[in-house]
Amino acid sequence: MKNDRGLLIVLSGPSGVGKGTVRKAFMQDESDIQYSISVTTRDPREGEVNGVDYFFKTKEEFERMIENNKLLEYAQYVGNYYGTPVDYVKETLEKGKDVLLEIEVQGAMQVRKHFPEGVFIFLMPPSLSELRKRITNRGTETEDLIDNRMHIAKEEIELMDEYDYVVENDQVELACERIHSIITAEHLRRDRVAVKYKKLLEVQK
Amino acid sequence: MKNDRGLLIVLSGPSGVGKGTVRKAFMQDESDIQYSISVTTRDPREGEVNGVDYFFKTKEEFERMIENNKLLEYAQYVGNYYGTPVDYVKETLEKGKDVLLEIEVQGAMQVRKHFPEGVFIFLMPPSLSELRKRITNRGTETEDLIDNRMHIAKEEIELMDEYDYVVENDQVELACERIHSIITAEHLRRDRVAVKYKKLLEVQK
Repeated sequence: MKNDRGLLIVLSGPSGVGKGTVRKAFMQDESDIQYSISVTTRDPREGEVNGVDYFFKTKEEFERMIENNKLLEYAQYVGNYYGTPVDYVKETLEKGKDVLLEIEVQGAMQVRKHFPEGVFIFLMPPSLSELRKRITNRGTETEDLIDNRMHIAKEEIELMDEYDYVVENDQVELACERIHSIITAEHLRRDRVAVKYKKLLEVQK
Repeated sequence: MKNDRGLLIVLSGPSGVGKGTVRKAFMQDESDIQYSISVTTRDPREGEVNGVDYFFKTKEEFERMIENNKLLEYAQYVGNYYGTPVDYVKETLEKGKDVLLEIEVQGAMQVRKHFPEGVFIFLMPPSLSELRKRITNRGTETEDLIDNRMHIAKEEIELMDEYDYVVENDQVELACERIHSIITAEHLRRDRVAVKYKKLLEVQK
């Protein structure tokens, strides 16, 4: 049921909604989709591994990638750079494999310009109070940074209109199931598969 | 995660593809979706029950429904009428419940005019030879009728372009899973849910 070209799936949403957690849980039993590892200049959090969670780079290394057009998108966020290496994404899609990006909202808007046919999923917190709790529980931020993140998060939620789907992250497992359904459905969209079926009938005439 | 208004889901496809079989299997463990029973003037097949599989009507009764605008769609197909009672569909959608129609391709095109926002699913045979086998195995048709149905079916497949999704009916169980994913994904579409989420944030400000 696959097309010739893979689907680009973009998972984004406001700071603190749990994008990383959902993405990890989702990819755990998913061999048909390739996760595209992002590049960042922020410090690794506890347990994060270079080349698995992110490629951790210096500011200078990151800026060289920008200059050499090696990034599909990048954004500065709370003082750090985040970006997606472009070559890997394009090569994987051309092989016919789906690619999942887990990126910040600013970056998602840049990707939309290059891949309007991508599947853009906005991960939504059940409420703003729950979002604040999650940002606070992360324990890596000061009170000022938390206020700052909440302010940014509210602005990010306004960008929901640029997305194709909204998935509530009330429970990680349920969010993963919803994302699975979206990807299955997108592979069945008539505009993606009609050509294949018509060829099939042509051969049989 | 439900909207105020239910989704109208239209399951259609060429004659003999197995619409009835898939619909029955699909509805068996589905309490959130209401199946809209069609009206027909054709004779009941073995095991079919009036008011469960169809409302079986005389030609005169059917034509009175047409005159009184009681049908959302109707079609003549291999000498018989098939139609969908309109009031039931509208009332159920307004209660916020999804409605599933299982109808012929001609009828689906009429429903599209009244419900452009409906979810139109085209059930596809794995191949034309498999389709012929299924029509033949049904055992209710003569060889001439089978040829006639195959001819119509090929024309019907050309109408695939009017649909939102194409689901291959290779195995009934797999087809049902795909339909489930489509309906889940459709409920998560941003244009259907954004208003609800924005209201949620408004309240919390």
